[in-house]
Amino acid sequence: MSHKSDIEIARAAKKRPIQEIGEKLAIPPGDLIPYGHDKAKVSRDFIRSLDGRPDGKLILVTAINPTPAGEGKTTTTVGLGDGLNAIGKKAAICIREASLGPCFGMKGGAAGGGYAQVVPMEEMNLHFTGDFHAITAAHNLLSAMIDNHIHWGNELGIDTRRITWRRALDVNDRALRSVVTSLGGPGNGFPAEAGFDITAASEIMAILCLAEDLADLEMRLGNIIVAYRRDRSPVFCRDIKADRPMTALLRDALQPNLVQTLENNPAFVHGGPFANIAHGCNSVIATKTALKLADYVVTEAGFGADLGAEKFLNIKCRKAGLSPSAIVVVATCRALKLNGGVTLADLSKENPNAVVEGCSNLGRHIDNMRKFGVPVIVAINHFHADTESEIDAIRAYVAGKGAEAIVCTHWANGSKGTLELAEKVAAIADADEAEFAPLYRDEIGLMDKIEAIATGIYGASTVSADPSVHARLKRWEADGYGHLPVCMAKTQNSFSADPGLRGAPSGFVLPVRDVRLSAGAGFVVALCGEIMTMPGLPRVPAAESIGLDADGNIEGLS
Amino acid sequence: MSHKSDIEIARAAKKRPIQEIGEKLAIPPGDLIPYGHDKAKVSRDFIRSLDGRPDGKLILVTAINPTPAGEGKTTTTVGLGDGLNAIGKKAAICIREASLGPCFGMKGGAAGGGYAQVVPMEEMNLHFTGDFHAITAAHNLLSAMIDNHIHWGNELGIDTRRITWRRALDVNDRALRSVVTSLGGPGNGFPAEAGFDITAASEIMAILCLAEDLADLEMRLGNIIVAYRRDRSPVFCRDIKADRPMTALLRDALQPNLVQTLENNPAFVHGGPFANIAHGCNSVIATKTALKLADYVVTEAGFGADLGAEKFLNIKCRKAGLSPSAIVVVATCRALKLNGGVTLADLSKENPNAVVEGCSNLGRHIDNMRKFGVPVIVAINHFHADTESEIDAIRAYVAGKGAEAIVCTHWANGSKGTLELAEKVAAIADADEAEFAPLYRDEIGLMDKIEAIATGIYGASTVSADPSVHARLKRWEADGYGHLPVCMAKTQNSFSADPGLRGAPSGFVLPVRDVRLSAGAGFVVALCGEIMTMPGLPRVPAAESIGLDADGNIEGLS
Repeated sequence: MSHKSDIEIARAAKKRPIQEIGEKLAIPPGDLIPYGHDKAKVSRDFIRSLDGRPDGKLILVTAINPTPAGEGKTTTTVGLGDGLNAIGKKAAICIREASLGPCFGMKGGAAGGGYAQVVPMEEMNLHFTGDFHAITAAHNLLSAMIDNHIHWGNELGIDTRRITWRRALDVNDRALRSVVTSLGGPGNGFPAEAGFDITAASEIMAILCLAEDLADLEMRLGNIIVAYRRDRSPVFCRDIKADRPMTALLRDALQPNLVQTLENNPAFVHGGPFANIAHGCNSVIATKTALKLADYVVTEAGFGADLGAEKFLNIKCRKAGLSPSAIVVVATCRALKLNGGVTLADLSKENPNAVVEGCSNLGRHIDNMRKFGVPVIVAINHFHADTESEIDAIRAYVAGKGAEAIVCTHWANGSKGTLELAEKVAAIADADEAEFAPLYRDEIGLMDKIEAIATGIYGASTVSADPSVHARLKRWEADGYGHLPVCMAKTQNSFSADPGLRGAPSGFVLPVRDVRLSAGAGFVVALCGEIMTMPGLPRVPAAESIGLDADGNIEGLS
Repeated sequence: MSHKSDIEIARAAKKRPIQEIGEKLAIPPGDLIPYGHDKAKVSRDFIRSLDGRPDGKLILVTAINPTPAGEGKTTTTVGLGDGLNAIGKKAAICIREASLGPCFGMKGGAAGGGYAQVVPMEEMNLHFTGDFHAITAAHNLLSAMIDNHIHWGNELGIDTRRITWRRALDVNDRALRSVVTSLGGPGNGFPAEAGFDITAASEIMAILCLAEDLADLEMRLGNIIVAYRRDRSPVFCRDIKADRPMTALLRDALQPNLVQTLENNPAFVHGGPFANIAHGCNSVIATKTALKLADYVVTEAGFGADLGAEKFLNIKCRKAGLSPSAIVVVATCRALKLNGGVTLADLSKENPNAVVEGCSNLGRHIDNMRKFGVPVIVAINHFHADTESEIDAIRAYVAGKGAEAIVCTHWANGSKGTLELAEKVAAIADADEAEFAPLYRDEIGLMDKIEAIATGIYGASTVSADPSVHARLKRWEADGYGHLPVCMAKTQNSFSADPGLRGAPSGFVLPVRDVRLSAGAGFVVALCGEIMTMPGLPRVPAAESIGLDADGNIEGLS
């Protein structure tokens, strides 16, 4: 097992020029728009030229509910991609971009870890190819144009108390959550309540990740509802005339980014929407491009399978016409022990009984994934202190569900640690046994969709919501938004809305506190609990450890 | 004369791969960090390897006071650079980056115009290589860390009423000028008055443009004063521990950008500080790198010579040890007529007398530049309606000053329109007659420096300021900041603080309303009048015309 830090391993990587990585997918060098020597965007024109080619097999990596023990979804995605390449398959991975803000707060980056990483890690965790910055710029241009419209006479009759479009910044800054703008006199506009969300939570991020091409992007941007009039009729982004300049700002960002794993295999890293108020997957364009270029595409979805995979399947796959061939559910002995009631302090003690107890969480996720008609396999992401008895307990439990659990050691060993998983996954995908269908039909009511997820995936007995929530959903149905899928914003730590409830709780009532319409992204958000859209920094932020060494290398990222 | 728009000309440009442009300056391809095929950053390591090489000649392009008629400083810079190359000299240009925000407001970009442009124009006016975004991110990280420090207990004892560090965003948004943050309860911090400046006005922009290398950048960032305590002692950025992560965020942005003119000559485009509250020149690193690689480097400073050139000489050249060989003052018949009392409506009518009248403005600038010991030449940027009698009037006036005025038609003809200017400028530079010295010595008092500029450059009889202003300057002298140069923030439209006063006013009193200490950038700002650090959008913003055509080309930029 490695004793090097992630950043040390990443910096020691023998990176190949990005053109060589592109070559593996037959992308001509002229169609790679370089950002440095190790990052590139794939050109719009090349992507257009792929129309009509057959698609590879799509494999989703998801996980049990996140715990403080760590599950390793991204490392497994990277490891499986490398494993498939190692057994001679043409495979690519598709993951999300890291958000800059949180890198300076608590969490590390989003590029994997150990010997299952994507590089260049430092750049990917900071500015990368500027996609997040472009989204921030487009977001705040719209904000400025709304206030400017009101300042110059408000011809559209916007009710200034009902501006729903906030501002965005890729920083962890609690001071910006709730602000009052336009103070200081008439020259500065009309004072108003406002606030900032982190860029990953911007509806524009979700739009960029769901858009099929530039025309679709512009249409979706135009569809954003930015405010309401006194008569409650919506004012759209296109009414403000911001959709076209925003599209210009996002033109380059819409092209997917190509980088490489430590083993020099192609990785598309594109888009990074929140997995609570948005759908939490990498971009449709990246996934579709990868499917045209590789025989196997491994992708991941945010948080556990109840949030991330559910949205991947019900929102992204439904809307983009994608159809996964296999689903990998990642679990660890440690996390299952936590689910089985063990405390953090006792995690390193052997405890197969607690593992079995915690497998209820894993089991629910396996059952859930099968409801979408897709074959499931479990990856046991191996940690140093795992014992044979614990691993056997998982294997036996999963076998009892009619599936297989494979031990993976990619963190320590790279592709050598995922050869068996890769063989099994390829066999499942090649068998073509998936019969994917979303959980609910477009035609049912919005509240029925929420209930379908709450009871069918979460194990709730029912949903509770204020009459005002019901009324809003009805209104949106009347306004023509009833066909949209629902995007659940719930704690990632439990099937329920109570983050402390591990395992596989059932019979609870899921409270829907609020609903929001993301008319541009194309979904209705159901908020089940407090969802933070602008993080704060901890008492000792990670920023304090980040800096340059004497050679200009970045230290302190992980 | 061309009837094509700037963007049409730019898009029709026969661009060469950026590696070929680098080759002209003997930059190895591996030391160019590409951003697409037509933009690159020059690597830190390569720049370090240039140490000890002899420098080329530095030529400053400046202008008379700006008028609505337009002067064409950037086009002349580009045209002169192309002209020098056309007569067989190895020349490069150094200009500033465009600010994204104003592109969507009123003004066009900052890439020249007609046949004297730098390309790729669209990218340069939008995200370019992400430098502005990196500055925005570093700026707001510091803001977040200050508020976070206070939120978690305020160990440094910051007086929350005396936080001087604002926030920054590259957008024209009047609503953000004055805000109240941290509303919504204790979880969001302590409510405070705050505000946003446009990124070009961030002290970090000035720092990036004055830093010699990464170590100097980090030191200057650490020196930023972010707040004061109750006892009025300063709290520095390094007390907040933000200097190192900010340096990490700015690492790549510090490397200068290489692009090309329409004639495929090298252009360094790097940094873009405001020319009022900051010094308004491109980066020291870009200028110094260009001087190591080219025999002639043509650069420009913001606004007229009273603001831009004065700061270029008294701040940038002084601090960076640069020494210009020649100064080109740009004038137009139209602008001189405006200075001579003609109205905008009558500008197209021949009026040599008004030209002569307006030459008082040009004459003052010529005299001023000579006070720095640098030879001066005048470029008459030719417009269609200019008449021989008017041009002759300028020629005669300038000859009377013992200098030469050369007609240039680069806008219509590219380098063919600046051959004579290029020959003359090269001859002046080669004659090595410049004996550059700043206008004032480091050792004199801060108010004495303000007075030296007011009387020596502006023609003021004296300076007026509140006792509180005098007291603050004295305090900063006592605190060890007395050696800093002064950065004047004054209207660009007049030598005086009254924007309506054209020509060469004298005998007026210059009112210094406020002073600010930019301890990181290393200058004291003297505010003479209302200076806007966050622009607003006009009634019909340019954004409404910006968008993509069916092929994904950007329309509406100019």
